[in-house]
Amino acid sequence: MADGGIGRILALSDGVFAIALTLLILDIVVPAATTDDELGKVLLHLWPRYLAYALSFLVIARFWVIHHQTFRLIVRDNATLVWLNFLLLFFIAFLPFPTAVLGGHEGAPAAAVLYATALFLTSASSAAYLWYATGRGKLIRPDVGRGQIRAMRARSMSGPVLFALSVPIAAVAPYGAEAVWIFAFPLARMSFVWFFAEEPGQQGSPGPPLP
Amino acid sequence: MADGGIGRILALSDGVFAIALTLLILDIVVPAATTDDELGKVLLHLWPRYLAYALSFLVIARFWVIHHQTFRLIVRDNATLVWLNFLLLFFIAFLPFPTAVLGGHEGAPAAAVLYATALFLTSASSAAYLWYATGRGKLIRPDVGRGQIRAMRARSMSGPVLFALSVPIAAVAPYGAEAVWIFAFPLARMSFVWFFAEEPGQQGSPGPPLP
Amino acid sequence: MADGGIGRILALSDGVFAIALTLLILDIVVPAATTDDELGKVLLHLWPRYLAYALSFLVIARFWVIHHQTFRLIVRDNATLVWLNFLLLFFIAFLPFPTAVLGGHEGAPAAAVLYATALFLTSASSAAYLWYATGRGKLIRPDVGRGQIRAMRARSMSGPVLFALSVPIAAVAPYGAEAVWIFAFPLARMSFVWFFAEEPGQQGSPGPPLP
Amino acid sequence: MADGGIGRILALSDGVFAIALTLLILDIVVPAATTDDELGKVLLHLWPRYLAYALSFLVIARFWVIHHQTFRLIVRDNATLVWLNFLLLFFIAFLPFPTAVLGGHEGAPAAAVLYATALFLTSASSAAYLWYATGRGKLIRPDVGRGQIRAMRARSMSGPVLFALSVPIAAVAPYGAEAVWIFAFPLARMSFVWFFAEEPGQQGSPGPPLP
Repeated sequence: MADGGIGRILALSDGVFAIALTLLILDIVVPAATTDDELGKVLLHLWPRYLAYALSFLVIARFWVIHHQTFRLIVRDNATLVWLNFLLLFFIAFLPFPTAVLGGHEGAPAAAVLYATALFLTSASSAAYLWYATGRGKLIRPDVGRGQIRAMRARSMSGPVLFALSVPIAAVAPYGAEAVWIFAFPLARMSFVWFFAEEPGQQGSPGPPLP
Repeated sequence: MADGGIGRILALSDGVFAIALTLLILDIVVPAATTDDELGKVLLHLWPRYLAYALSFLVIARFWVIHHQTFRLIVRDNATLVWLNFLLLFFIAFLPFPTAVLGGHEGAPAAAVLYATALFLTSASSAAYLWYATGRGKLIRPDVGRGQIRAMRARSMSGPVLFALSVPIAAVAPYGAEAVWIFAFPLARMSFVWFFAEEPGQQGSPGPPLP
Repeated sequence: MADGGIGRILALSDGVFAIALTLLILDIVVPAATTDDELGKVLLHLWPRYLAYALSFLVIARFWVIHHQTFRLIVRDNATLVWLNFLLLFFIAFLPFPTAVLGGHEGAPAAAVLYATALFLTSASSAAYLWYATGRGKLIRPDVGRGQIRAMRARSMSGPVLFALSVPIAAVAPYGAEAVWIFAFPLARMSFVWFFAEEPGQQGSPGPPLP
Repeated sequence: MADGGIGRILALSDGVFAIALTLLILDIVVPAATTDDELGKVLLHLWPRYLAYALSFLVIARFWVIHHQTFRLIVRDNATLVWLNFLLLFFIAFLPFPTAVLGGHEGAPAAAVLYATALFLTSASSAAYLWYATGRGKLIRPDVGRGQIRAMRARSMSGPVLFALSVPIAAVAPYGAEAVWIFAFPLARMSFVWFFAEEPGQQGSPGPPLP
């Protein structure tokens, strides 16, 4: 029963993630008046849109990976978790808009500030449900150790901190902010590999069966 | 078998809910002719669209939560339930349109009347499948008490009543109607918390296993 | 294993159905130049688009119901079934286009012929996988009687026949074709209720457990 | 647990595949200024868009079938598989763009080169996760024979090789490249039937139960 409840939260979330990932491409369009001869040049000049597409795809993919890892540990749901999860989905579904603005206004401070703010709010809401589920909500598997929880919580703060720092940078140096976002990804990626590498060992142990 | 049937109804419904939630963002666009210098101002002037986006996201999320709670109690499906569910999905999939009209015509009575009417029809169809499943359809778990059913049915009427009242208000005072919609949400939210808070106790009890 | 295979076919199919249902709304737009004063009139003048939206929603919903009923009986999959199912999804995903044309060119013979042809091809491919699965493919549960199979096959022909007939009607009398489509739905609906009404009895019988 | 992990990877992937398949139709639009009298002619003149739609639908469907077959053999997931799968989804979600360009610029070398390159990158990433899962990753069922793995790996190279060859062809003879893509499909299709035809026998064998 509880599992059935979580199952639908995941189904809805996966749907929103999948659609946000796929809608990003709708921002890349060749102007209708383009002739066949100009086409090659026009396609190359769209590079800021390709970059914005790739960046947002990576960012949404990473939030999905965090969601996937966290919900593997969650065994119960409640109303607060449902609404914190909706808060995350709200910002995930919003991301195609700042992506489109960034792709169309490469180098404009306003576009970079909007994007940085959106990433900050998304990562803050991603941390929020993780903190709630592993803390007050008591929704995770009883066999998850305190050390692992502390590590997950600490790691969940790297996004909000980095993206908050990138907001003022975006206002004065838009390209600098983009460098932070691109740098933030592989950095966080490495800690992720380290975390994931641990898990198989735990999966191999018998442990209590999940309800 | 019956469960497999319900499983697909939920999968299709979650898909429609997820897409409706995510399509809302397609209405927020920066005009193509915007220069980098104007961008900041243009982004701020889009506030009616952000508001319409947030309002509709909340509204669709709430209909999903009601759907989620109700279908937790449903153990069988039949043709009438399938079509009443499609009636709800019809209005859920329709909501991006009144949202776009409201975001583009903030303060216009016609936009507010359209939105109020759409919300009324959606909440009425949301009540319809709930009443059918818990009443004539006899589709819910046998261990659900009469008191709980009565409470659910009563609560399901708050949406249609409030949104029906907001239609004439929208015609004469569009911003007043918006206040009703925003007020309606937290109000209904509170009763939802109260309802959900009860459930864990029931889940803890052994009860008959679900098929 | 086989079930896992069918599970993913259903997940992909439900995704395509859900998106096709929801994308239909993107065709209903208020022209950008509309003033607040004109808005009410403009919204009413969009009625051919609302009608096309409702008609296509009903049609896609019905194809989903047939899909749902048929796959309840299917216990194995193979390559032919996968590709016949893709043929159906191809036409389901195509339907938003003729819907948009019909909504924008109410009464034009070319729009009605396109819509009739699309419905004919969709219903023919819907019949194709049903005939294959219940016939040469031998993919259905062994306890499904010959009489039930014969009834399902006969019923699956009503769509192709009706929609094929509506193609020449659409060419000379577009509104006559629309009447056929709207009439075809409730008619087929009734036979569906009759079919569905039978099922509970079969479900109540013990029967062999599904793999 | 591992299964739950794979379940969500599949749910997200099926979502992206389903949306990519369905978004393709958004590129086919009748110009707003079209009169009812011209409509028939305009609809016929859209044939390059219908062709691009059908081609991309087939291509995405085939990548889904490969995904479906490969993940039937995969019993464990890890971080590398998740990110290789995202690499595939990145290119799947990208395909609606080259499809739109090809449909709007039939016969332009730049459009054909873009499409060929996109297909090459998609098929290369499709081969990448297959090679990883069956090789270093050791993620597949222990009862899958070395011969079957070798056959799958060999077959997975046909796409990258063919589509890489089509890039230079597209630059000098765009229609020649289209012939290669259309020819590549049925060819690969045949080997697929041969592969799938084998499976039922293996499914019939008892084999170790999947976790």
